[in-house]
Amino acid sequence: MTRLDLSLDAAALTVVLCDIESVSGNERRLAEAVELVLREVPHLTVQRDGDTVVAQTDLGRAERVVLAGHLDTVPLGDNLPCRVEDGRIHGCGTTDMKSGVAVQLRLAAQLDRPNRDVTYVFYDNEEVEAEKNGLGRVARNHPEWLAADFAILMEPTNAAVEGGCQGTLRADVVFSGHRAHSARSWMGENAVHKAGEVLQRLAAYEAEQVDIDGLVYREGLNAVGIRGGVAGNVIPEECVVEVNYRFAPSRSEAEAADVVRRVLDGFDVRVTDSAPGALPGLSHPAAAAFVAMVGREPLPKFGWTDVARFSALGVPAVNYGPGDPMVAHQREEYCDIAPILECEERLLAWLR
Amino acid sequence: MTRLDLSLDAAALTVVLCDIESVSGNERRLAEAVELVLREVPHLTVQRDGDTVVAQTDLGRAERVVLAGHLDTVPLGDNLPCRVEDGRIHGCGTTDMKSGVAVQLRLAAQLDRPNRDVTYVFYDNEEVEAEKNGLGRVARNHPEWLAADFAILMEPTNAAVEGGCQGTLRADVVFSGHRAHSARSWMGENAVHKAGEVLQRLAAYEAEQVDIDGLVYREGLNAVGIRGGVAGNVIPEECVVEVNYRFAPSRSEAEAADVVRRVLDGFDVRVTDSAPGALPGLSHPAAAAFVAMVGREPLPKFGWTDVARFSALGVPAVNYGPGDPMVAHQREEYCDIAPILECEERLLAWLR
Repeated sequence: MTRLDLSLDAAALTVVLCDIESVSGNERRLAEAVELVLREVPHLTVQRDGDTVVAQTDLGRAERVVLAGHLDTVPLGDNLPCRVEDGRIHGCGTTDMKSGVAVQLRLAAQLDRPNRDVTYVFYDNEEVEAEKNGLGRVARNHPEWLAADFAILMEPTNAAVEGGCQGTLRADVVFSGHRAHSARSWMGENAVHKAGEVLQRLAAYEAEQVDIDGLVYREGLNAVGIRGGVAGNVIPEECVVEVNYRFAPSRSEAEAADVVRRVLDGFDVRVTDSAPGALPGLSHPAAAAFVAMVGREPLPKFGWTDVARFSALGVPAVNYGPGDPMVAHQREEYCDIAPILECEERLLAWLR
Repeated sequence: MTRLDLSLDAAALTVVLCDIESVSGNERRLAEAVELVLREVPHLTVQRDGDTVVAQTDLGRAERVVLAGHLDTVPLGDNLPCRVEDGRIHGCGTTDMKSGVAVQLRLAAQLDRPNRDVTYVFYDNEEVEAEKNGLGRVARNHPEWLAADFAILMEPTNAAVEGGCQGTLRADVVFSGHRAHSARSWMGENAVHKAGEVLQRLAAYEAEQVDIDGLVYREGLNAVGIRGGVAGNVIPEECVVEVNYRFAPSRSEAEAADVVRRVLDGFDVRVTDSAPGALPGLSHPAAAAFVAMVGREPLPKFGWTDVARFSALGVPAVNYGPGDPMVAHQREEYCDIAPILECEERLLAWLR
């Protein structure tokens, strides 16, 4: 079993965490390493549910804060192991979000007497369908583990506070045809050819920009996958375009589904998965105080994050982490070292 | 090991052969069964190359004829095991072409003193890329096994003689983009969206019909597959449309590639595989004599068949088999029993 060394600085620890591959569904090894090292920290109580690890202090403080981060990453893009160059760590998961996880682990080891009780959550399956999400599973199985006055998701924000998050909806657009030998294509009906118009509508669609409390949420409607075909000499009988709609938190999931159905009117659109956004909520006292401590202008969060899940649990939450959200999920993903150390320092100062 | 019973009539034997699943690449079990049963036939010499079995008489006749059929099928479509109903066998491979293989096996067992020497060829990987084709492999490894004055491919023709065959060309149309998190889609470039225009051009394309010696070859240009996408929250960086062009035998492979490039002008078209057609060649004496014996009007062959490969080896060849080519490669594939028995009877009469 892998042993993590929490005496490494947060940047070096980020490299170690990234080099333990943990694409969604494959977090076991990393979760075990996190559990193992935290069980050795005397001031923490550690719990485990699937590949989610929850550790907490129990000092009877007046307030409790959650620091949460996911252990999984999107699929690799020939970008592991990490490479460190000129103050920057390159590799899968560096920005989204093992740099944040490294800061969490460093805080967990150092803060033996925090001024607020702290719950550290390390969870699985954030980058896939909402129903697999480890934080959602813990909210169902052990809601008491997540009880808190305020939560910070350490998703990439360039060390600024990002308020709320957009919602996300996935749908399959399904085209049916009729198989035939491709040498007699006129006997069949080509399902792949039918997808052309949908792809062109998506390419032409201009997504909206929605202003909420001065934060501008920029939407997006995209094909994220397409598949069709039986064999090289068969007219395809089915084609499926997978669509992902990222929508402003002012829309409900039902309204979001209506937008997709309207844009793709005339086609067989099947919503497969959705999760609501979260309104910025920066007027909440705990959020306002944290924003003041960070001392930077708050921004809107584009990516869906589990801020929405804490919101639904009644726990005000913001995003705050060292990564750059703009390079998340790219082959060229990287994270600068300076904001990693800055986040650790700010949070240490705030919690000591 | 499966033992085939060649005393079954050709229809019952078709059912047995179909129920031994042999999707391309998985012909081993069927090839072994064919080899085993033919090695027990005293008047035959049997050879094996990969999953191709070649059996022949050696009576020193003035003329030698090849009867050839492929053992593989396209992927299943929930259509095995076979179902026999009202004189019709339903299931994968019934028409293309295990009914023809059943006739071959019946002839091989019965014709101990044929009036022409006969070579029976049972080969693998006809339904996939030309480079995997078992007959092609035998032509490279053991060309002497295929030496003959005339060849009959028992591909489905409704028990009529079908002359020549169309050529086939496969190409990948490749679209490149740039990965990004789908919540910030404006940072990426969606490769799947770019495929829309190609699909629309293919849908709109009107294929030609080419008259050669009174036989009208009807062409077809189709997407037979499409794939793209990394994960549900990532803007896809690549999309590939696989295209199959079936072209009249009057065109060369190079001319066929030009047609595809012209229709898809402006896109990145990469030819991956092609095989030339074969002109009808029914004026050859051996072909003309066989056509006269069958006593039906000859027709053009739409599907690519190994007639083209025999053509290239200098052996005149036609297609003649019991299946209906119109239902080949469909989920609803079937073969009527009457033409199976008719083909066996005509060939027995011709070769006795």
